[in-house]
Amino acid sequence: MAPVCVRDNEGSSVTNTSPIDVAWMRRAVELAARGIGSTHPNPVVGCVITGPDGHPVGEGFHAVAGGPHAEVEALRMAGPNARGGTAYVTLEPCNHTGRTGPCADALIEAGVARVVYAVPDPNAQAAGGAEKLRTKNVAVEAGVLQREAEEVNHVWLHSVRIGRPFVTWKFATTLDGRSAAPDRSSRWITGELARADVHRKRAECDAIAVGTQTVLDDDPVLTVRDEHGRPTGRQPLRVVVGDREIPSTARVRNDDARTLMLPTHDPAEVLRQLDDHHIRHLWLEGGPTLAAAFLRAGLVDQIVAYVAPAVLGSGYSAVGDLGAESIDHLRRFHCADVTRLGEDVRLTLTPFDQRTH
Amino acid sequence: MAPVCVRDNEGSSVTNTSPIDVAWMRRAVELAARGIGSTHPNPVVGCVITGPDGHPVGEGFHAVAGGPHAEVEALRMAGPNARGGTAYVTLEPCNHTGRTGPCADALIEAGVARVVYAVPDPNAQAAGGAEKLRTKNVAVEAGVLQREAEEVNHVWLHSVRIGRPFVTWKFATTLDGRSAAPDRSSRWITGELARADVHRKRAECDAIAVGTQTVLDDDPVLTVRDEHGRPTGRQPLRVVVGDREIPSTARVRNDDARTLMLPTHDPAEVLRQLDDHHIRHLWLEGGPTLAAAFLRAGLVDQIVAYVAPAVLGSGYSAVGDLGAESIDHLRRFHCADVTRLGEDVRLTLTPFDQRTH
Ligand SMILES: NC(=O)c1ccc[n+]([C@@H]2O[C@H](COP(=O)([O-])OP(=O)(O)OC[C@H]3O[C@@H](n4cnc5c(N)ncnc54)[C@H](OP(=O)(O)O)[C@@H]3O)[C@@H](O)[C@H]2O)c1
Ligand SMILES: NC(=O)c1ccc[n+]([C@@H]2O[C@H](COP(=O)([O-])OP(=O)(O)OC[C@H]3O[C@@H](n4cnc5c(N)ncnc54)[C@H](OP(=O)(O)O)[C@@H]3O)[C@@H](O)[C@H]2O)c1
Repeated sequence: MAPVCVRDNEGSSVTNTSPIDVAWMRRAVELAARGIGSTHPNPVVGCVITGPDGHPVGEGFHAVAGGPHAEVEALRMAGPNARGGTAYVTLEPCNHTGRTGPCADALIEAGVARVVYAVPDPNAQAAGGAEKLRTKNVAVEAGVLQREAEEVNHVWLHSVRIGRPFVTWKFATTLDGRSAAPDRSSRWITGELARADVHRKRAECDAIAVGTQTVLDDDPVLTVRDEHGRPTGRQPLRVVVGDREIPSTARVRNDDARTLMLPTHDPAEVLRQLDDHHIRHLWLEGGPTLAAAFLRAGLVDQIVAYVAPAVLGSGYSAVGDLGAESIDHLRRFHCADVTRLGEDVRLTLTPFDQRTH
Repeated sequence: MAPVCVRDNEGSSVTNTSPIDVAWMRRAVELAARGIGSTHPNPVVGCVITGPDGHPVGEGFHAVAGGPHAEVEALRMAGPNARGGTAYVTLEPCNHTGRTGPCADALIEAGVARVVYAVPDPNAQAAGGAEKLRTKNVAVEAGVLQREAEEVNHVWLHSVRIGRPFVTWKFATTLDGRSAAPDRSSRWITGELARADVHRKRAECDAIAVGTQTVLDDDPVLTVRDEHGRPTGRQPLRVVVGDREIPSTARVRNDDARTLMLPTHDPAEVLRQLDDHHIRHLWLEGGPTLAAAFLRAGLVDQIVAYVAPAVLGSGYSAVGDLGAESIDHLRRFHCADVTRLGEDVRLTLTPFDQRTH
């Protein structure tokens, strides 16, 4: 079959890749996506194994941190049929003995003849898998469908590369930029579909942070809940930032999830502490003061804004003072996505300098 | 041919209409749309005439106020072939001697046997055309494709029905609801595509209003300009609302268009005065104070918001105080349309009680 041109993630060089490799890698990416929201602090990974005759003999994905890696799942399904075959993995097989043994070793032991992977492992601790495979005479090919595979792991990769949690600032606002009325009431600015979307997106993160004032004003629970309002299985870590004590009766202190109090005003310190807790994706729910502190520090990697088609004309602004004096100080972002949710509109913004999105 | 079901504008009753009538009326609506933006203060109207054998023999549309009506144009093209034929008109033929004679008479004189129209004329002065046709033994059918025909004339119809100009409030805002920085600078919040869109939409109105402060701060020209910045042919009336004198050097006083000074703070009075000037569609460009006055008075029929994916964190709010104290006072609108314009997003909102949109 004729080779097709595949552009690598840098968008610059072009390599020739067999359409068969691309097709199996696409399947592996599909499998990887099944783990989204449940593998924290690990990446999502998918794997397909074909036998020596090119037919698929096994597939798997990484479903939950501590559980088997994608390669191990696929090898288990393939059994002896993996010998002499090809393994397609969305991320470079690890060379790291964590809760499971190194996947590179497992592939070698199973007698796989060739390993094709999409994205090199940016994690210094786990990398080196490709190298080890090569020394054991396994043919190794990298970069197949890299862009798609990066996309599915985009937050995790970004977090590992920048060495801190990826920060998504979420807020709900009126069209005139209000996040609460003068009496501090803010329920509800947006409609049901938008609020359900917030719960879906919270579920993809591993920590949710607010400032103390939001806890004192709104007494939020900060859990992921299903359509009946019941907390779902895995819960992100709840984080309250600020010096003031939170009353022991605050709902954020209930048993539905763990809660971390961070008595600091420094966003970088918040992220350092969360890094120690293996947090890869922080969902920053405000309020305006805490969000402004993160924006000023340049520590917002994504903005998810839920805009209601409504005007208030007074009340609290969606974001605190950023020190802007003239329109030249406007902080502009790239509008990556616009989605309607009932009457509301969700805007997803990314910094212009963010390469991976 | 089997009759198809056509739902009338009320969405309630259903009438049986021949698909041939629907097809020619659709063509008439297409023709009507060509007049959008140039027929003020008249509606847009399209007309198709078919001969006795059902073949089209003439078509026309109302291109400019003072120019021939759609029916007259179509009759001119049809000549003697109109005799015994059918005229399809998007609006009830007028019975009014204005700058041109009544169209009902012209159709009768040409010997048209049947007249099908979409929308009854809501204008007391011009209505009665259908009645006159019937008395002259012309077969008359009303309501064919009424919804589509209303849509193309939506602003004009609404204006005639409510007895005042239709008001569109336009504003450009950051995602945090700012329309100007603390130093009053506001150029530019949105990008080129959004600004070009404003000029296209200004061209569909017949007056553009701002408060005195916007003139003093921004010295806007308030004309419709092409991509080279040159004023286009027909210009909406420029309106400045407020008591203060505008300097004679203000650009809004230049010769590119007419300008009306309205030394009042009462939006209803503004609309009364504009009605005297035969204004059907007012494009309200702010600023926040004037816009708030119209919102409080319940005199905004449509909101067109250009939202930039950017945050400012300080400066002037997109809308002045509306007296809201709690979130229950939020003024909610129906989100009729969301359109991306480069990096910016245009939201079009309508009041929930507005039947015609
Ligand atoms: N619409 C929305 O999306 C949304 C989301 C969240 C909140 N809200 C609304 O926002 C309102 C609360 O606003 P807010 O801005 O006061 O809440 P906030 O940002 O949640 O809390 C502010 C508090 O956080 C602490 N803090 C942490 N880092 C800080 C820093 N770098 N600088 C200053 N303070 C820092 C301070 O508390 P200490 O004094 O304890 O140190 C400060 O008083 C509520 O009415 C809520 O309804 C709306
Ligand atoms: N981003 C945007 O879309 C946009 C659009 C327009 C303006 N702006 C910005 O808005 C700023 C100006 O804001 P603004 O709100 O002061 O401007 P404005 O609404 O244009 O003008 C306010 C003035 O209008 C008069 N006025 C008319 N009716 C009134 C009423 N019912 N109540 C009170 N005053 C009334 C008053 O002037 P008198 O004292 O003369 O009576 C008042 O001072 C400028 O910096 C401009 O850049 C932004």
